[in-house]
Amino acid sequence: MSTHRIALSSAALALAGFVVAGDVAAQSAADTVAARQSQFKLLAFNIGPLVGMAQGNMPYDAAMAQAAADNLVAVASLNQARLWPEGTDSMAMDGTRALPAIWDDLEDFTTKFEALRTGVAEMQTAAGQDLDALRGALGGVGGACTACHDAYRQPQ
Amino acid sequence: MSTHRIALSSAALALAGFVVAGDVAAQSAADTVAARQSQFKLLAFNIGPLVGMAQGNMPYDAAMAQAAADNLVAVASLNQARLWPEGTDSMAMDGTRALPAIWDDLEDFTTKFEALRTGVAEMQTAAGQDLDALRGALGGVGGACTACHDAYRQPQ
Repeated sequence: MSTHRIALSSAALALAGFVVAGDVAAQSAADTVAARQSQFKLLAFNIGPLVGMAQGNMPYDAAMAQAAADNLVAVASLNQARLWPEGTDSMAMDGTRALPAIWDDLEDFTTKFEALRTGVAEMQTAAGQDLDALRGALGGVGGACTACHDAYRQPQ
Repeated sequence: MSTHRIALSSAALALAGFVVAGDVAAQSAADTVAARQSQFKLLAFNIGPLVGMAQGNMPYDAAMAQAAADNLVAVASLNQARLWPEGTDSMAMDGTRALPAIWDDLEDFTTKFEALRTGVAEMQTAAGQDLDALRGALGGVGGACTACHDAYRQPQ
């Protein structure tokens, strides 16, 4: 019975394309970099409307602001354990701006990532209240981004 | 005071690169497609170790399995409201396999997305227990992937 369920699962996963893409043993450094960049893309995409509202480039929309803030919290909550293996820095491979300095001080890197989590949690509380509250929380998010990028992201 | 805080936020965001990338008015259809593809990349990346363990290609690791399942729940929880605007289907633009059929029946599409949320919630309960529990929950996740891909994703 248990074997039967596995067989079904494998078939379903094959259909879903996960037998090719899904086996962690087959996940390359490029896959790992793509996954970690995906989370930053999702952060940027959801910071977008919050910045747009704060700067007056679009009308304040409480529901959209709250949804964006909730998304930021969800993305920032992702467990980072598999996303930063050694050998995936900007000196070791193409396609990443992650500086080797990250691995020289993982404790500080982790602290800066935690600051992002704090910033987006404050945004989650503020974003749906009103525009002033949203604006007040934006500095914390932006500051967390900046602090980590300044230290650990290769300039373009 | 409020204005001062806004100015600080804008400066911080400029440093973080979000003034370029962050304004939703400046977010193109390509940005939107990249963001929605990012979430699927993160889903695949986290399904990876669960499939690897289920198929015996890597040892069962309760902590890694739980982290992967938690990540799946976080990614699947993302609010989808801004990710599927009309005009971002595979007939309307390059770089996406999202079939126009999505927009012909958004209610069914939403139902299939909810099935993913149900599947990963069951995986979250199961993954850290033991390998049999993980295997038992994999069919639900894979089935949700397959159902939606079969209906709404252009074959490669």
